[in-house]
Amino acid sequence: MNLTEDNIDKTVENLRKPLVDFVQQTVRTPSLPDEEHTVQELVVSKLKTLETEVDVFPCQFEQLKDHPAFCDDGFSPDKRIDVVGRWGGNGNGRSLILNGHVDVVPTGDETLWDDSPWSGSENDGKIYGRGSCDMKGGVSTGIFAIEALKKLNFKPDGEILFESVVGEESGGVGTLAALERGYSADGAVILEPTSLCLSPIQSGALTFRLTVPGKATHAAMKWDGINAIEKFSMLQTAIKDLEKRRHEEQTHGFYEDPNQIAPINLGTIHGGEWHSTVPGEVVVEGRFGVFPGESIDDARKALEKAITEAALNDPWMKE
Amino acid sequence: MNLTEDNIDKTVENLRKPLVDFVQQTVRTPSLPDEEHTVQELVVSKLKTLETEVDVFPCQFEQLKDHPAFCDDGFSPDKRIDVVGRWGGNGNGRSLILNGHVDVVPTGDETLWDDSPWSGSENDGKIYGRGSCDMKGGVSTGIFAIEALKKLNFKPDGEILFESVVGEESGGVGTLAALERGYSADGAVILEPTSLCLSPIQSGALTFRLTVPGKATHAAMKWDGINAIEKFSMLQTAIKDLEKRRHEEQTHGFYEDPNQIAPINLGTIHGGEWHSTVPGEVVVEGRFGVFPGESIDDARKALEKAITEAALNDPWMKE
Repeated sequence: MNLTEDNIDKTVENLRKPLVDFVQQTVRTPSLPDEEHTVQELVVSKLKTLETEVDVFPCQFEQLKDHPAFCDDGFSPDKRIDVVGRWGGNGNGRSLILNGHVDVVPTGDETLWDDSPWSGSENDGKIYGRGSCDMKGGVSTGIFAIEALKKLNFKPDGEILFESVVGEESGGVGTLAALERGYSADGAVILEPTSLCLSPIQSGALTFRLTVPGKATHAAMKWDGINAIEKFSMLQTAIKDLEKRRHEEQTHGFYEDPNQIAPINLGTIHGGEWHSTVPGEVVVEGRFGVFPGESIDDARKALEKAITEAALNDPWMKE
Repeated sequence: MNLTEDNIDKTVENLRKPLVDFVQQTVRTPSLPDEEHTVQELVVSKLKTLETEVDVFPCQFEQLKDHPAFCDDGFSPDKRIDVVGRWGGNGNGRSLILNGHVDVVPTGDETLWDDSPWSGSENDGKIYGRGSCDMKGGVSTGIFAIEALKKLNFKPDGEILFESVVGEESGGVGTLAALERGYSADGAVILEPTSLCLSPIQSGALTFRLTVPGKATHAAMKWDGINAIEKFSMLQTAIKDLEKRRHEEQTHGFYEDPNQIAPINLGTIHGGEWHSTVPGEVVVEGRFGVFPGESIDDARKALEKAITEAALNDPWMKE
């Protein structure tokens, strides 16, 4: 079959139903961080039907932990597996990686969902459920793109690698493991949702945890203690100022809004044990946006500097 | 034996060792809110040796829930028991209540304790462990005061009621249950620690919970969401201002520091599920000081008004 537009359209159209079914099947297979195993097995089975060489391998902490790009997300990477499907070329062309991740972020309050977060239900041409968009849709499309090309008897000149990775939502251990396994190519397409636009630039992110100390005492004597919630409030102001300042210092022509490039998010906050005790500790976790071109190390230092300076302005935090 | 100062001193001195032992025994019996049963059994046993009439009764939610002073602390009061020891008088004098509570606040981070929070160990003339001061020391002293007077063959004119109650740290369900059971007297001594000073005035407290709504989204797109941690920060400022204003409006000659009468404490904070998600909700619990003479209702309204006014100043919170 020739690679005419008409033939491609027909082949893709014929794959629509199986593609939708496969996306639904993956959405119905919960895959929170560290729990990606089952959905990866679906990917393996599907890749095997396409006659690609399938490589399944664990993300090994020991191999990765000293890598400058390694970000420990607190889960054991040894139990998490990557899947790579390899479609060999004839050696006369440039190689390509198609990369997607199968982990999804937590569902939030399930009562706010109209349906189960793992329903995978279809409504008005859209698939619903955690991960439908980010990015089981993208992962599935990559696999079915290979299937369509194979059905069209297309033979690639360069090697095509399909990577289904884990841990993208928190540190990127999966893609790092694939790189360390030796997989590289002349080009890569990350199949993240971009409304089918090309996205040639992308900010990065660090995950951080702040532990804010206080001094616990009974609330009726609060002046004898130090309230960690109040001390965190001071750091929060410093973080907000830092976010503003970092954006003011940047110029990136690719971005529509120069203030929406690499945001800093306070994601979780937990502190105190009792309403009537001055809380002795607050722990905050967040996501620190890294600007395109900025090194991870510089980004980390910018956050550390802002927190240190704010703390030094406070007699208690100074200690 | 006559009630001379010398006789009293000797009798009290002879009870020192058993008193210390009893305090230690009660401290070694953990009694967090809703878990006061075991320590109340110790109190019952001790009161029975003193030939007082002992009344053990549950704090019944159904009986108490409509009382204006009832404050639901979230525990089932039906399973929590009060103990009252009654030492009858000859009917010719005024009656007295000695009141103490056996519940204790949580221990906080146990690694910050030199010894177990339930050690009850004695060091340099002091007993250590959660509740030693607030207020198993006071409870025990009340019981041993009765023992000392009995040993001195003292016969009270008025009835003496010793009340060992539960739930003082969070709502006061135990003392309310004792009142509803019909126990009252011409006077009462609350055996809370006051460095042996008389304390004729006392601020009160309400427990409050604030649920601050946000709108969850991915941290990389934080401008599409509403960060509940940031929204709480706004309310925190309003609460701080309210605390200052309330103290400025008060004059209480009994207090050394007019700014340390009825503090507002933010005790716990919990929100967000994921560092890279804009948090959709933050829940804060705290203790709201009630001024002497202020009604619970007025205090509640003052807090509600401050929160409402702050929320109305914010487009998101307004909704």
